[in-house]
Amino acid sequence: MNTIGNIYRLTSFGESHGAAIGGVLDGVPAGLELDLEAVQAELDRRRPGQSAITTARSESDRVEFLSGLLNGVTTGTPIGFVVRNENYNSDDYTAMAAAFRPSHADYTYMAKYGLRDARGGGRASARATIARVVAGAVARQFLANIGIDIYAYTSQVGDIRLPLPYYAYDKAAIERNAVRCPDAAIAEQMEQLILRVKAEGDTLGGVITGVIKGVKPGVGEPEGGKLHAMLGAAMLSINAAKGFDYGLGFDFADKRGSAVADRFVSTEGRITTATNNSGGIQGGIANGEDIYFRVAFKPVATLMRPMPTVDTEGRDTVIEGKGRHDPCVVPRAVPIVEAMAAITLLDAVLMARASRWQ
Amino acid sequence: MNTIGNIYRLTSFGESHGAAIGGVLDGVPAGLELDLEAVQAELDRRRPGQSAITTARSESDRVEFLSGLLNGVTTGTPIGFVVRNENYNSDDYTAMAAAFRPSHADYTYMAKYGLRDARGGGRASARATIARVVAGAVARQFLANIGIDIYAYTSQVGDIRLPLPYYAYDKAAIERNAVRCPDAAIAEQMEQLILRVKAEGDTLGGVITGVIKGVKPGVGEPEGGKLHAMLGAAMLSINAAKGFDYGLGFDFADKRGSAVADRFVSTEGRITTATNNSGGIQGGIANGEDIYFRVAFKPVATLMRPMPTVDTEGRDTVIEGKGRHDPCVVPRAVPIVEAMAAITLLDAVLMARASRWQ
Amino acid sequence: MNTIGNIYRLTSFGESHGAAIGGVLDGVPAGLELDLEAVQAELDRRRPGQSAITTARSESDRVEFLSGLLNGVTTGTPIGFVVRNENYNSDDYTAMAAAFRPSHADYTYMAKYGLRDARGGGRASARATIARVVAGAVARQFLANIGIDIYAYTSQVGDIRLPLPYYAYDKAAIERNAVRCPDAAIAEQMEQLILRVKAEGDTLGGVITGVIKGVKPGVGEPEGGKLHAMLGAAMLSINAAKGFDYGLGFDFADKRGSAVADRFVSTEGRITTATNNSGGIQGGIANGEDIYFRVAFKPVATLMRPMPTVDTEGRDTVIEGKGRHDPCVVPRAVPIVEAMAAITLLDAVLMARASRWQ
Amino acid sequence: MNTIGNIYRLTSFGESHGAAIGGVLDGVPAGLELDLEAVQAELDRRRPGQSAITTARSESDRVEFLSGLLNGVTTGTPIGFVVRNENYNSDDYTAMAAAFRPSHADYTYMAKYGLRDARGGGRASARATIARVVAGAVARQFLANIGIDIYAYTSQVGDIRLPLPYYAYDKAAIERNAVRCPDAAIAEQMEQLILRVKAEGDTLGGVITGVIKGVKPGVGEPEGGKLHAMLGAAMLSINAAKGFDYGLGFDFADKRGSAVADRFVSTEGRITTATNNSGGIQGGIANGEDIYFRVAFKPVATLMRPMPTVDTEGRDTVIEGKGRHDPCVVPRAVPIVEAMAAITLLDAVLMARASRWQ
Repeated sequence: MNTIGNIYRLTSFGESHGAAIGGVLDGVPAGLELDLEAVQAELDRRRPGQSAITTARSESDRVEFLSGLLNGVTTGTPIGFVVRNENYNSDDYTAMAAAFRPSHADYTYMAKYGLRDARGGGRASARATIARVVAGAVARQFLANIGIDIYAYTSQVGDIRLPLPYYAYDKAAIERNAVRCPDAAIAEQMEQLILRVKAEGDTLGGVITGVIKGVKPGVGEPEGGKLHAMLGAAMLSINAAKGFDYGLGFDFADKRGSAVADRFVSTEGRITTATNNSGGIQGGIANGEDIYFRVAFKPVATLMRPMPTVDTEGRDTVIEGKGRHDPCVVPRAVPIVEAMAAITLLDAVLMARASRWQ
Repeated sequence: MNTIGNIYRLTSFGESHGAAIGGVLDGVPAGLELDLEAVQAELDRRRPGQSAITTARSESDRVEFLSGLLNGVTTGTPIGFVVRNENYNSDDYTAMAAAFRPSHADYTYMAKYGLRDARGGGRASARATIARVVAGAVARQFLANIGIDIYAYTSQVGDIRLPLPYYAYDKAAIERNAVRCPDAAIAEQMEQLILRVKAEGDTLGGVITGVIKGVKPGVGEPEGGKLHAMLGAAMLSINAAKGFDYGLGFDFADKRGSAVADRFVSTEGRITTATNNSGGIQGGIANGEDIYFRVAFKPVATLMRPMPTVDTEGRDTVIEGKGRHDPCVVPRAVPIVEAMAAITLLDAVLMARASRWQ
Repeated sequence: MNTIGNIYRLTSFGESHGAAIGGVLDGVPAGLELDLEAVQAELDRRRPGQSAITTARSESDRVEFLSGLLNGVTTGTPIGFVVRNENYNSDDYTAMAAAFRPSHADYTYMAKYGLRDARGGGRASARATIARVVAGAVARQFLANIGIDIYAYTSQVGDIRLPLPYYAYDKAAIERNAVRCPDAAIAEQMEQLILRVKAEGDTLGGVITGVIKGVKPGVGEPEGGKLHAMLGAAMLSINAAKGFDYGLGFDFADKRGSAVADRFVSTEGRITTATNNSGGIQGGIANGEDIYFRVAFKPVATLMRPMPTVDTEGRDTVIEGKGRHDPCVVPRAVPIVEAMAAITLLDAVLMARASRWQ
Repeated sequence: MNTIGNIYRLTSFGESHGAAIGGVLDGVPAGLELDLEAVQAELDRRRPGQSAITTARSESDRVEFLSGLLNGVTTGTPIGFVVRNENYNSDDYTAMAAAFRPSHADYTYMAKYGLRDARGGGRASARATIARVVAGAVARQFLANIGIDIYAYTSQVGDIRLPLPYYAYDKAAIERNAVRCPDAAIAEQMEQLILRVKAEGDTLGGVITGVIKGVKPGVGEPEGGKLHAMLGAAMLSINAAKGFDYGLGFDFADKRGSAVADRFVSTEGRITTATNNSGGIQGGIANGEDIYFRVAFKPVATLMRPMPTVDTEGRDTVIEGKGRHDPCVVPRAVPIVEAMAAITLLDAVLMARASRWQ
């Protein structure tokens, strides 16, 4: 099950320490000129080694497109792409091959398949998200073409939280710091916290907030294809993601209906809502307001300190992370959240084309 | 997109005030004797009119099975089923047809399809969950047969929360009160709160906690079929659901990796984890520990008091709920959460059969 | 796998001697007023007991629609439907339960599922095609709305063949005889042959030719969704179907390229082909010419004479058909071929909506 | 729709004159050691330039595997692969870009997508079958591991036909001649015919017969997944395929039921059929007998002689094939037919794992 999407679909492949990560984009509509450098730029945003708060593993992560384009224009046929793996030291993982790292997928892959590629987490590595970033970067160009804008930012690192709702922050400020937090002062606190925790060989969790603007009312399907459920599945499939909510989300639980109902109003012939606690989706279908959501991430499981565990024979052992790992996954996960949102939205937009007969 | 699942699949149909709700269960493995009364019993748990805290709409909701069984044993062919709609008053909804109820799917359905069945929310009605409950009740019999146990309970209503983790509560206590909360004292508080809010014509949100025990390590697929992402999509597709997390979920965000890593230990030749912050899933694949998760629900959108909104022409109007609606969806959503968990797990168990060659 | 289609999808259920045959039509676009009597009329065309050449089993086969319609107009939500089984005598099948009928699916169902519903062929019965006829009758109304016309006719019964290509025959003549052959004289020969063979307790094979007119160029997908491959799969899934070809089909094998190339010509600004040996599809995509194809059917497997076989224990036995069976499936399969063509085409038309970005 | 299969799935990409052809194999069960040279050997069988009767276009067509293998053993994760395009002369196609070649997909791709990659047929080129051959070569190793053997041979070229049923011919004789026909004398006639027609700048159609041995009873699904319908769709999706039948196929049409019923017999405790007119499948499910089928191919559409057509503006023009094209596709399509059969069977075998509960 390495396919995501219904009409616009990414089928991906690749292990952390194999030859390459790549995939096939199917259902790409014909006739849009793609900015391939913009796709590469999204990969660069995801790439490790960007700053002091990310892993130092350094790879160029250049994407090569193999099909589906003619003079840069999509032809409607599938786009195959590969990103070669370059700089890795398999020796870092020799010890890991013999033991199950705590809170990693080592044990579950072994249980499922009877064998596993222990080098760098194999298929379960965060490097596999490279394919998603490519698919998302292509999708967002289509979406931009119809006025849909997607962005995400770090809203929590450890116990440091952004206090205000999404609309209080400036999108343009997000990329101004390594943490990808739109509030410069809080970003600075987050960065200091990450560095402190990194120095201790420890790791941190966090939360990313995503925003999607410009979706026309009517996108999303009932029952098996509710837009927020598709978004939720997409976000939860990101490595280390442990929770998803949208609109007021979990904060709805202690609210009264009278306090959070989104009253409809008519403004210049267009129906909107006076508030947007629903998060832009009602009954699984977009209502035209901003879609906003949160994704919770656990702390990175690989610590740079000795951790007790068992080996593949079930004997007690101690393991210590030696590869290059981020102390906090959140800053680099921001472009991945955006990518998954873009994949989901383009898919939903194309699906919605079949809603009405004429 | 009214199909849920990959191998074990529910394709459902039906509107609140149409002739019937029903569906087709496909991929039902052959050879299990089903307890059809147990399926009906699950429907009875979902049925309105059970207590003072639920809507008084009274329907028998009897399920009729039309195929796929021979002397009560599954034959491997699809199980068609219908539940007739009986007791409803379409007049309650006449006013609603002309206006868009706040925070309901009235407007989005109209935007999507160009017309809508305004009677009782049509397809977006919570009555559509009847089909899911049937599918779940069938699935849980298969799962019970291989030692998988699923249950859920109300863990929050408004600002009243259960303070302890799931394992601190007794499953047997859940059904002893109308709220479906395993702590009798807190259940009593929740019930009083619901009655108070109901008297005000208002509604309340809440949270349900779900638990799945006995899943063998190896169930769940990488990338496009991660078990928690499938669970998340299933839960988020329930009416009024706004959030999902599993394991520590959003509480992971402010934790350090060293504090929450689930150390592997070997007990009597079986590998388990010393703690279970991960919630039984690592890398999208079950590790054999308990799976536990939360689902957040918003307050019911229909209030029994006047609410300003616009009509289908965009003119200001006022609407007041007249149908029968729960003041809090959570108690009756408990069996639906269980049903969606069962559907997802049976599907994942069957998918996992193809993981290894031999 | 009881679902057919990608966007317009039929998920069906039902055994010959169970309570009902039915299904769910999903992906029905919103906004078309359906003529429900026309759907019933298609079922009537399929119904047994129409003439001396079909089985005398008599059922009213009335379809009941349960959802997805508002004042007869499609709402975009799924259409559930059921056709109750009425008149059958399970006793006819008692002997059959103990033995495997030659060339029937009795043995394979038992091998696959470990048990089987032996009454009347269970799920493998031709009665299961009822659901397809309903789905096809709905689809053809959408197609008629955009100028696509579908029809089929009997072109061979036993060794009696229609000598001319499809365009030599009058569509209006097809329904004038019980055989559904547009040449009255040949139809009479076919009918006599069927009656003669029936009198001998024997059965006959045949061929149906299908025609689809008015498909716009561009319908059909590359590789995994070629229009003729989808049509072929649809036709081959009909009970007793053993072969499919389109355009010149098997007759292409002994032709030279120079003799059968379909030269493009431009007529009044529209590009057409001077000949249509390709059968309206090139590279899996419709080119705007008529699509025509053939479906081969084997003789009905149930003979009204003693046949040696083995029982479920592998012991030699003799079985004799006692139920009501057609001596030749072809006349009653004509509406089923049309139905499958309509399902396939509507699906392909909806899929093609995502081909181009703008 | 560039995905084929349900559990074992090939998602492919690539144009004739783009950078590469490739794909992703998903659903590959873990734990089988693959012979990668055997995969390459299948590609070599498909490669052009093998003999005087095929195109002289010469490419090494080396497949590179990018993931999913550990020391040659499948890990259960997807296998990405690419085959680079090397030797082509785009100039050969300059004229073709301006005109629609008769009986080619030039016009339909343009009609569908609004633009097309005119170089060598783009995605509609037979080079796209490279991905299928790789997927098939992997699948057949799994199948061989459980005793399933697949082979195909040329049974008709132009008007020269093999007169006997499949079991009269020796599988080992197939690869002894360039035509891939198991009867040496008839192969010689076929080869002479092809060379004669080639000298005239013309092309020829033909038929391939496929055989699948060793499938266990019970493989195949009812209704939407009938084994022969899946096989048929797979075969019809091959370039230039125009027809498919299995068992007696179209020859059933003029037979009586009494003459072709496959009587069950019990031999040493195993139930088999005395004859095998059904072609090893009954009700869409394998009965354990040999599966055999035919695929009809039209003559190659590109002739090495002037052909009248229209250009993209609809003006009359003349086109003459200048690229390298086979005069008869059939000999090189033999490994493709085998590949499609292997993909379909492995998929069906894996699907059948979910048929029974225990």
